[in-house]
Amino acid sequence: MSAFDVEHSVRAAHAASRVLAATDTSTRNQALEAIATGLLTHQGTIEAANAEDMAAGREIGLSDALLDRLLLNPERIAGMAEMIREVAAFGDPLGEVTESSTRPNGLVVERVRIPLGVIAILYESRPNVTTDAAALCLKSGNAVVLKGGSEAFHSNRALIQICRDALEATGIPADAVTFVDTREREAVHQLLQQDEWVDLVIPRGGEGLIRFVVENSRIPVVQHYKGVCHLFVEESADLERAVDICLNAKAQRPGVCNALETLLIDAPVAERFLALLGPRLAGADVTVHGDPTVQAHLSDAKPASDEDWDTEYLDLILAIRVVDGIDEAIDHIVSHGSGHTDGILTNNALLARTFVNRVDSSAVMVNASTRFNDGNQLGLGAEIGISTSKLHAYGPMGLNELTTRKFVITGNGHIRD
Amino acid sequence: MSAFDVEHSVRAAHAASRVLAATDTSTRNQALEAIATGLLTHQGTIEAANAEDMAAGREIGLSDALLDRLLLNPERIAGMAEMIREVAAFGDPLGEVTESSTRPNGLVVERVRIPLGVIAILYESRPNVTTDAAALCLKSGNAVVLKGGSEAFHSNRALIQICRDALEATGIPADAVTFVDTREREAVHQLLQQDEWVDLVIPRGGEGLIRFVVENSRIPVVQHYKGVCHLFVEESADLERAVDICLNAKAQRPGVCNALETLLIDAPVAERFLALLGPRLAGADVTVHGDPTVQAHLSDAKPASDEDWDTEYLDLILAIRVVDGIDEAIDHIVSHGSGHTDGILTNNALLARTFVNRVDSSAVMVNASTRFNDGNQLGLGAEIGISTSKLHAYGPMGLNELTTRKFVITGNGHIRD
Repeated sequence: MSAFDVEHSVRAAHAASRVLAATDTSTRNQALEAIATGLLTHQGTIEAANAEDMAAGREIGLSDALLDRLLLNPERIAGMAEMIREVAAFGDPLGEVTESSTRPNGLVVERVRIPLGVIAILYESRPNVTTDAAALCLKSGNAVVLKGGSEAFHSNRALIQICRDALEATGIPADAVTFVDTREREAVHQLLQQDEWVDLVIPRGGEGLIRFVVENSRIPVVQHYKGVCHLFVEESADLERAVDICLNAKAQRPGVCNALETLLIDAPVAERFLALLGPRLAGADVTVHGDPTVQAHLSDAKPASDEDWDTEYLDLILAIRVVDGIDEAIDHIVSHGSGHTDGILTNNALLARTFVNRVDSSAVMVNASTRFNDGNQLGLGAEIGISTSKLHAYGPMGLNELTTRKFVITGNGHIRD
Repeated sequence: MSAFDVEHSVRAAHAASRVLAATDTSTRNQALEAIATGLLTHQGTIEAANAEDMAAGREIGLSDALLDRLLLNPERIAGMAEMIREVAAFGDPLGEVTESSTRPNGLVVERVRIPLGVIAILYESRPNVTTDAAALCLKSGNAVVLKGGSEAFHSNRALIQICRDALEATGIPADAVTFVDTREREAVHQLLQQDEWVDLVIPRGGEGLIRFVVENSRIPVVQHYKGVCHLFVEESADLERAVDICLNAKAQRPGVCNALETLLIDAPVAERFLALLGPRLAGADVTVHGDPTVQAHLSDAKPASDEDWDTEYLDLILAIRVVDGIDEAIDHIVSHGSGHTDGILTNNALLARTFVNRVDSSAVMVNASTRFNDGNQLGLGAEIGISTSKLHAYGPMGLNELTTRKFVITGNGHIRD
């Protein structure tokens, strides 16, 4: 059997994208419904494929946590179908006229939302990403090329076959959902050279994968490396509320990118705030890495090293530093932040304004937990990922961020002088 | 003397961009006015530097056309100053709240326009690009790193020094306009690796330069390779008007990217239309490369080869093909177009709609010359370039396309459930 042909596959995806772009809203929604139904109908097939991955995972010694992420059971499959139906219920981003004006010469200039074309998604995550990503791409009129982690190979193959069958049943070319049906790493490198056929690559996974993609891709990449998220407790903050926010930001779900990693406390309130915060952190099993002032007030705190200020723990660990006012807080965030999510807790409106103006992270929070930087929470409906690079999309990417806008210019025999 | 240090320079530009991003509208406008004044005051210095480039250009045998492009005289310098004042008069894109909503939990979510950060511009064009690009970047709060063609080296160095002096006089760090002060090609390669400090690269020049940048850059690139622009004269079109539009699109300024390169004529009107068009093209010295039908009706037409359909002539040459209806026209454009500018000339509103929906070029024209795909003509004010890649910007890029949007999320002690 011959090796998987990357170029042939992405050309097919590109051809399918042309057909998909011309479909109306209801056809795309029918396709999504057919996928959701297919997942439920073929639950047994999915479970059987997943069992192969689980067995192989056990054999190579995957951790229980990773095995749990890999597992597909009836409840999870039902959740995936439900998610696809939610995407189907969203408004159609395509065809929206986002700007319209008439020039002095009478020419009508509009900007109209269209799909990007073909989107490649490289991911290491749970198999549900396969159907979530396919649903968001199809809804926004984009063909999608999927390359998941090799540990989920059989599961992904089964899920994608269900998507392709559902597309064909709806009259959309199956290649609108294309599987990179190989475990060879070389395929990823080949894929990243296909800038003639693929419009965007979204890598989702560890920093190693993302750096590999950025360094090797000719196709534009939207990515985020990590989330070293900060909160600054300013002197005027309501300290009781600030404790609740810090606890929520750190401990509600520590393993995600919008969790708090470094807390900056304004010097005048440091002692009082740490006295309130310390017991709550301890109660939530959070280990503190603190500067000398923090250590003086929190006996359990370990000393923070320089490295701590740049670390995304994704764990029940919190770095804490006492700073001398808002300027030092902003300087720290600018130097050590990752452009993901940073916030201020304050009752001083002017300082809140200063912070918002000077911090250019993808999400700047005022008196709210960092955990709100999430497509669903911000009203985007769902997100396909989050971007901390500023081009095209900055922050959570919803359906609109999977589109672009063309100019449509209507005249009446207009010629240029 | 040591070699030019690319990394040191882009880090300095990055530091300057932080200061620049925090300036208010009037400070940035003052800086632009100071640059315009500086150009006029130091006209003699600019002309002296330009004379060095001109002499070197003559020595290496640059064509008269290229020498003319290189020349800076008092009139051209005054034009550059005028352009900068026009940019100063534009509205400030920064701080605009483009979306605002309140979530069911009371959280206020806004998207606010901010600069991209640092923009590198690699160009082979006339020296006026130096000050045009600097003005657009500064107006939109971005630091700019400029690397012009080596034939304009002394001119560019003098222009950039004037910009830097003007910035310092206004209290903005001079490094907000940074010159890659070397002719070594290796510097370009080094520059393209600086994705930590540079947010966007815009290459402007020949296809060779642009491909080199796309293949070697870790920094996101916005570019266009070429403009193979089409018009389709549909059977219902007003043929007299269509002749005027085709002439304008082809011959008004044939050397630019939005000039017409391929004309598609609907079979039922081919003979009548060619009879009207032929003499007009001949009168404008336009050579026709036509398919057999075209050759049968235009005795002067040369035969078109397969290559013609993919060629950007940038010259008084027009490829003409007779097609069998709108589907064949669209298929031709999809196969041979460059995503730049393509239009239909028709009096059938439904077919106009079909064409607009199915052609996904950055600008789709209806009954208007392709020459209108230009930032000034479309009301963007001025353009820093044009993009035929779909990410971030598609079509002419004005000030808004030099910005991104961050989320600003304001709560009142909000925590996530």
